Amino acid sequence: MNNKVTDHTQSLSYDLIPFSEAHQLTPHLLNREGKKSRKLFKTIEDAIRNSGLQDGMTISFHHSFRGGDKVINMVMDIIAEMGLKNLTLASSSLSENHAPLVEHIKSGVVTKLYTSGLRGELAEEISRGLLEEPIHIHSHGGRVHLVKTGELDIDVAFLGVSTSDEFGNANAVTGNARCGSLGYAQIDAQYAHHVIVLTEQVVPFPNQPASLAQDQVDGVVQVDQVGDASKIGGGATRMTSNPRELLIARKAAEVIEHSGYFQQGFSLQTGSGGASLAVTRFLEEKMLRNNITASFALGGITSTMVDLHEKGLIETLLDVQSFDSNAADSLARNPNHIEISANQYANPSSKGAAVDRLDVVILSALEIDTEFNVNVITGSDGVIRGASGGHSDTAASANLTVIVAPLVRGRIPTVVESVLNKVTVGSQIDVLVTDHGVAVNPEREGIAQQLALAGIPILTIEALQQRAQLLTGRPEPIEYHDKVVGYVRYRDGSVLDTIKQVKE
Amino acid sequence: MNNKVTDHTQSLSYDLIPFSEAHQLTPHLLNREGKKSRKLFKTIEDAIRNSGLQDGMTISFHHSFRGGDKVINMVMDIIAEMGLKNLTLASSSLSENHAPLVEHIKSGVVTKLYTSGLRGELAEEISRGLLEEPIHIHSHGGRVHLVKTGELDIDVAFLGVSTSDEFGNANAVTGNARCGSLGYAQIDAQYAHHVIVLTEQVVPFPNQPASLAQDQVDGVVQVDQVGDASKIGGGATRMTSNPRELLIARKAAEVIEHSGYFQQGFSLQTGSGGASLAVTRFLEEKMLRNNITASFALGGITSTMVDLHEKGLIETLLDVQSFDSNAADSLARNPNHIEISANQYANPSSKGAAVDRLDVVILSALEIDTEFNVNVITGSDGVIRGASGGHSDTAASANLTVIVAPLVRGRIPTVVESVLNKVTVGSQIDVLVTDHGVAVNPEREGIAQQLALAGIPILTIEALQQRAQLLTGRPEPIEYHDKVVGYVRYRDGSVLDTIKQVKE
Repeated sequence: MNNKVTDHTQSLSYDLIPFSEAHQLTPHLLNREGKKSRKLFKTIEDAIRNSGLQDGMTISFHHSFRGGDKVINMVMDIIAEMGLKNLTLASSSLSENHAPLVEHIKSGVVTKLYTSGLRGELAEEISRGLLEEPIHIHSHGGRVHLVKTGELDIDVAFLGVSTSDEFGNANAVTGNARCGSLGYAQIDAQYAHHVIVLTEQVVPFPNQPASLAQDQVDGVVQVDQVGDASKIGGGATRMTSNPRELLIARKAAEVIEHSGYFQQGFSLQTGSGGASLAVTRFLEEKMLRNNITASFALGGITSTMVDLHEKGLIETLLDVQSFDSNAADSLARNPNHIEISANQYANPSSKGAAVDRLDVVILSALEIDTEFNVNVITGSDGVIRGASGGHSDTAASANLTVIVAPLVRGRIPTVVESVLNKVTVGSQIDVLVTDHGVAVNPEREGIAQQLALAGIPILTIEALQQRAQLLTGRPEPIEYHDKVVGYVRYRDGSVLDTIKQVKE
Repeated sequence: MNNKVTDHTQSLSYDLIPFSEAHQLTPHLLNREGKKSRKLFKTIEDAIRNSGLQDGMTISFHHSFRGGDKVINMVMDIIAEMGLKNLTLASSSLSENHAPLVEHIKSGVVTKLYTSGLRGELAEEISRGLLEEPIHIHSHGGRVHLVKTGELDIDVAFLGVSTSDEFGNANAVTGNARCGSLGYAQIDAQYAHHVIVLTEQVVPFPNQPASLAQDQVDGVVQVDQVGDASKIGGGATRMTSNPRELLIARKAAEVIEHSGYFQQGFSLQTGSGGASLAVTRFLEEKMLRNNITASFALGGITSTMVDLHEKGLIETLLDVQSFDSNAADSLARNPNHIEISANQYANPSSKGAAVDRLDVVILSALEIDTEFNVNVITGSDGVIRGASGGHSDTAASANLTVIVAPLVRGRIPTVVESVLNKVTVGSQIDVLVTDHGVAVNPEREGIAQQLALAGIPILTIEALQQRAQLLTGRPEPIEYHDKVVGYVRYRDGSVLDTIKQVKE
């Protein structure tokens, strides 16, 4: 994208008005005593009343506490008690623990939803038609694009942090509930019309580092708990000990080593999911053996990446979201472990997204089809149980995109003829690594040749699909209603797919 | 200011368009080889052509190199050669060394000017009617307000830095030309439609710290020299050895000590000018003796403040502009020496300007009148030779605003019946300290009582004015043409005063 200026010189107009009095714009400065604490509110309800939140508006949250988040349920209960209705809820993502939203949807408090993903009871209910209006599933980069284009016009953002001063300088690397990077929250802080910080501790001004800054924040409320930081490392970001996942990860590391992109100064990202996260572990020995160091690791940052960083094998960590508490603490400790915003991470209309500079990304899949299209949002029963995340952002941008997945999960095939829902289009996927073999996208013949030269056997993806079908049998087609329950928005805002209501 | 959201739910509308292809928004990603260096341009001219800059548009610069700046003259020469005309030039400020702009104004390249101040030949010529349209003199905080309200709608910003990577992550604390904080440039980087970084060194991605960030920058050009950092400490930010200035500074420190605002955890700022900067030096002994430390020092940060910070007497330095090379280097070295943007510093419509939390500010004056109005923009001959800077921003916000000035300068009185031009209104000034005595604004009786209790003699400002007149004689009135050559814009954007063309 070329950010050329456009000629708008004709539209410039302004009036020169005479001076009236010194505090026309700053009435808060007339009260010498109150001016320092003017943003502090005793209760969330007070802060909401001050925000001017009304029926029909859009509220937002960040998901950096993942399954440990306490903010969304706490705030939504209060909003419901206040009698507000017809709100659009735009959290950067949602987890299993947000099941109480089901009640708020039933009672009409929330009537529209934007999120990267959802799981658990809320996802089940939505898949079965809970909401009148289809939800919008966006990627992490795509969310910023929706915000910047104005479709996602956030009225009030509620942002949980571990520490804030009374002026709104806030972070999540000091205090108790340290989720680390606030890269998603930074977008809401920048673009929401009104920003309320919920903090466990109010610390002296100026709080540093200021992941969220005083000139972005309107209200500050102290609350008991914003999140359980121990839970950010659970679920999809856990380190695996599953032998099959470790086998796949080891094989993926081999593929990367021989792909042509494993060169001094390469960069990498690993998506959530056991095998994906474990790849870093197996890359370490290859980096040492080949005397190769990485320039940066990107995205969700893990303990393993911190370990390699501290060993000097990864020069810089660019952290939009800390995937465990070790990573969160490293962000505070290591000067080259850097917090980046979701715009700097992955927005396709950003002037500079770090994904654009990515050499290698390793991603998971719930399903991948013979055209390499990937589904990370719905299970084999058509029910939502995942998240778009940075999947399509990184796949579109990296030089080498590797999907790691078991060929089958129990009686369910991962490699299929056609995915139930597309989140990432096959043209952006380069290699599939399964426990039954490796397939390379026919569009990337160069990579196939490199791997063959290294003695890595290559199968066609059709062969892997047939093998899967042999193991599981042909899956029964899912029965859907006509009703659309969700739009899968591509990172550029277009509708890549629709999710239909499943029959009971 | 209460940032309530307003109901705009009716105006929300957007179209859901179907997915077309993966790189609709990211055509630059289709070229695997070129994507990393897509922002790098060989010459400034190339970068300008790419920007789409056209006649009649607005260009901007930052003034953190002060008299050492090399960017403005370099870029303007190229723009002139390219034949562009009728531009609005909006530098955060201008110095003596920008005299070549006179020619660019004469030739019609520049037809409109926004700046905090100007000096030297350019200021002389403008005072004598060089420009058809009056220039706009704004405060540092007021400039951000003009940018945010859209009056100052920057098309292309040219921002000089000491180091940048090829993606636009840039700072001025590493490399050679280290001017330190880029607090003013950060506003242009955030709001300009197109941002070109001029850097002395191109360093590996990701350059840190990123005072200007990759998602703000469109073009990067390597140039020989962006500025002479040794000159940022010259002129108005030099440390004085003038005995009269030291006397005034010592007296001002006494005033502060007994004002009622010299308490544990107080905060302070010193404006440019010899006596003002020297106050910090005299506060040190008082802080030690009274066992008082400051929570923060704000604004233009000096060596003396760094010294007190490193001695533990000032906890945090909030730096919008480093006033000398020691301060610039401290910004790189000291974790509690923090770069802040001009919006975080002083914008009256910011959600949180640090000036609002200021206890004590010490400021200079070219003239102050018996209503305490201050002129820092024109000399006694009516010719522009100063800058609005943070004067009105801090005066309006601090709990104690002290003006330090010699009663007379040579044959020219500083304390006058009526200032030639108002930059800061008298209602915002609390105390005047001169080498002939101290006056307190009658509106601040409490301060006068505190000082009297401490045995500090208080004069009326009328007495000081008469004393000055006794020493210099009554100044001859200046002869002006009717033509307005400049508007003094108050920090809220209103026109506080007009500067008239002086007769030869």
